[in-house]
Amino acid sequence: MSASEPDDRRARGRKVLTEIHGPVGEEVVARLAKIAPDFADHLVDYAFGDVYARPGLDRRSRQIATVAALAALGNAEQQLKWHIRGALNIGISSDEIVEILMQMAIYGGFPAAVRALTAAGEVFDEVGVEAAEEAIQDDA
Amino acid sequence: MSASEPDDRRARGRKVLTEIHGPVGEEVVARLAKIAPDFADHLVDYAFGDVYARPGLDRRSRQIATVAALAALGNAEQQLKWHIRGALNIGISSDEIVEILMQMAIYGGFPAAVRALTAAGEVFDEVGVEAAEEAIQDDA
Amino acid sequence: MSASEPDDRRARGRKVLTEIHGPVGEEVVARLAKIAPDFADHLVDYAFGDVYARPGLDRRSRQIATVAALAALGNAEQQLKWHIRGALNIGISSDEIVEILMQMAIYGGFPAAVRALTAAGEVFDEVGVEAAEEAIQDDA
Amino acid sequence: MSASEPDDRRARGRKVLTEIHGPVGEEVVARLAKIAPDFADHLVDYAFGDVYARPGLDRRSRQIATVAALAALGNAEQQLKWHIRGALNIGISSDEIVEILMQMAIYGGFPAAVRALTAAGEVFDEVGVEAAEEAIQDDA
Amino acid sequence: MSASEPDDRRARGRKVLTEIHGPVGEEVVARLAKIAPDFADHLVDYAFGDVYARPGLDRRSRQIATVAALAALGNAEQQLKWHIRGALNIGISSDEIVEILMQMAIYGGFPAAVRALTAAGEVFDEVGVEAAEEAIQDDA
Amino acid sequence: MSASEPDDRRARGRKVLTEIHGPVGEEVVARLAKIAPDFADHLVDYAFGDVYARPGLDRRSRQIATVAALAALGNAEQQLKWHIRGALNIGISSDEIVEILMQMAIYGGFPAAVRALTAAGEVFDEVGVEAAEEAIQDDA
Repeated sequence: MSASEPDDRRARGRKVLTEIHGPVGEEVVARLAKIAPDFADHLVDYAFGDVYARPGLDRRSRQIATVAALAALGNAEQQLKWHIRGALNIGISSDEIVEILMQMAIYGGFPAAVRALTAAGEVFDEVGVEAAEEAIQDDA
Repeated sequence: MSASEPDDRRARGRKVLTEIHGPVGEEVVARLAKIAPDFADHLVDYAFGDVYARPGLDRRSRQIATVAALAALGNAEQQLKWHIRGALNIGISSDEIVEILMQMAIYGGFPAAVRALTAAGEVFDEVGVEAAEEAIQDDA
Repeated sequence: MSASEPDDRRARGRKVLTEIHGPVGEEVVARLAKIAPDFADHLVDYAFGDVYARPGLDRRSRQIATVAALAALGNAEQQLKWHIRGALNIGISSDEIVEILMQMAIYGGFPAAVRALTAAGEVFDEVGVEAAEEAIQDDA
Repeated sequence: MSASEPDDRRARGRKVLTEIHGPVGEEVVARLAKIAPDFADHLVDYAFGDVYARPGLDRRSRQIATVAALAALGNAEQQLKWHIRGALNIGISSDEIVEILMQMAIYGGFPAAVRALTAAGEVFDEVGVEAAEEAIQDDA
Repeated sequence: MSASEPDDRRARGRKVLTEIHGPVGEEVVARLAKIAPDFADHLVDYAFGDVYARPGLDRRSRQIATVAALAALGNAEQQLKWHIRGALNIGISSDEIVEILMQMAIYGGFPAAVRALTAAGEVFDEVGVEAAEEAIQDDA
Repeated sequence: MSASEPDDRRARGRKVLTEIHGPVGEEVVARLAKIAPDFADHLVDYAFGDVYARPGLDRRSRQIATVAALAALGNAEQQLKWHIRGALNIGISSDEIVEILMQMAIYGGFPAAVRALTAAGEVFDEVGVEAAEEAIQDDA
């Protein structure tokens, strides 16, 4: 039985989805499945089962790459918030997330970074982390 | 004497630039300085001195964020190649770079990922790394 | 009297606008005309009168091209919803629209496709079509 | 044996890839496989096997959606040319392609449309079709 | 004492920020500082102190460049509104703003221009200017 | 005879095109007309005849808006170079162009600004202006 059989992809994708996003992951997929059930499957099977589950890059690095890309692209606020919450879930600190988003001003421009940091602030409020106070100071 | 005085920003920026990009870093800045000298300074002082030099996020994570963002944005081939070379310089493996770029198909689309992987292949050839053979196989 | 005289462009544009978008088309243009009356005319004359009215491509193909482009660009939710409604008006089925949007994950990325499908779901709800149930199943 | 088993996805993807792109399809995938073999598989399995092969939308409509999206995104010249050639292969005329690309000026802007039409002109030259002469005239 | 010392950059940036955006400028920066205090400093020091404060281009031209860029990028509605208000503050008329935004349909596409003009209409309403009535007519 | 009659749009568009771009303007349009003759007409009639020719905004401001937008969008190198040359033609200095492009780093990101400045450097070389030497220095 090969590791890429359909059931494996689905099961592996669901496992990774839940490890990163918690129960919210399945809720997002379920909501999508009402509009486009096969697309919801593609998201689980391909994005999470085929890509995120790959062993060649640690989970922290994968999540940083995703948060950075969504912030730089600057047009996917909900998905960025979802992945910021996922980053917190897997142990990336709110301060590190702020650092990633600040750096994205260089690549996606300042307005994209402002929007991303505002989105992060909302996630931090919802989740209950205090970001600003511990933020690393330039001149400290 | 405060850590954010101009000479410090410049010196700190140059140091980080060279640590990531080697002598090529100064060459890129010098080329830019012929067209817009103050912009070349902004790049060193702000991007490298104020952002990349910050202690709140490790260098590996910063470089992953940048490579991911440039691949997802999909319209900055030269800068992406420059940062892929920088990633190799600081110890991110060619296989890990391939993993980051594959993942960007999810966020920037497949054509952006194809272009990024092609750019990476060119860098690997120039630098002399063998990427494909060691690439992690899905079904291994 | 030549076919490209101003009155013809206006009349032709208005006719096509109404054929695709129904009375909502004129409402959108009227709302825009309050801010920028000449721009509202450009939209009718150029976009609808000069481009959409051209005989060289059937209306279904034109509407598919527009829905695909707006979904892939991923930053024009209102216009995408407007054109999804237009697509339904001219006989493109909700299932076909879902297929177009799923395919756009390949070109604009998954977050863009998720947003487009969510927008489509809202239009389908407003208009009263049942999309998900009849959606073509991968594994059927 | 379910229709979504790995070998089926691969075989179905390859079949569709060749039907649209001819032998050039396999060449593009082979070139990509040298850099990232699993990504080349994802492209065949997911993009062509899971999406393009779906029965819910005719091939002409799928190819129009792709050409439109790539033209509007405006940053994937090689992929656009590849898909313009694919469009010609499956029977979309050069005049229809010109119409799609002209329409994209409305959504991706004139510079994107100019670049797309220039790319199309190069494909038409390579393939040997005469586009301009038969182009539908506004005022005819 | 050199003109680029830290305190100078901060003071110069704050001065320019207030000249363009009025008291709202400091409010935006203060809100951002709660999430990422150093990023708020980068915005003031680099964007306003190092770039906007430069003598080589008049303020009107700088503000036109910014409004045009944000409209064409089409994914930063709040920042566009902020800069439209800034443009009014420094004496660019609402009719001129409408002209800039109409022109952006050529570069960012019609949907981006529609969104930008809608945002401008909201700012004009808030600020109390009457744009449409005095708008220059094509055919006048 | 109304100012917006077809022949007027064409004549007005051609006049503005030549005033900004010189004989190169007609060459670009002629090249485009070989692929898509009606699109070349749309470019002249709509972009130059309907938009650039409008009296509500001075030509300098219009050209600044266009150069800024193309630099920020960051994916239209040829069109940016064409419009930088147009900016020089109508009396915007190379130093002012460098200022506009430096400012775009804030909105389109540093890589977009680097590409735009590199493109500008190529235009300045071709046209024979010396930009860097007279560039306004931050610290002067």
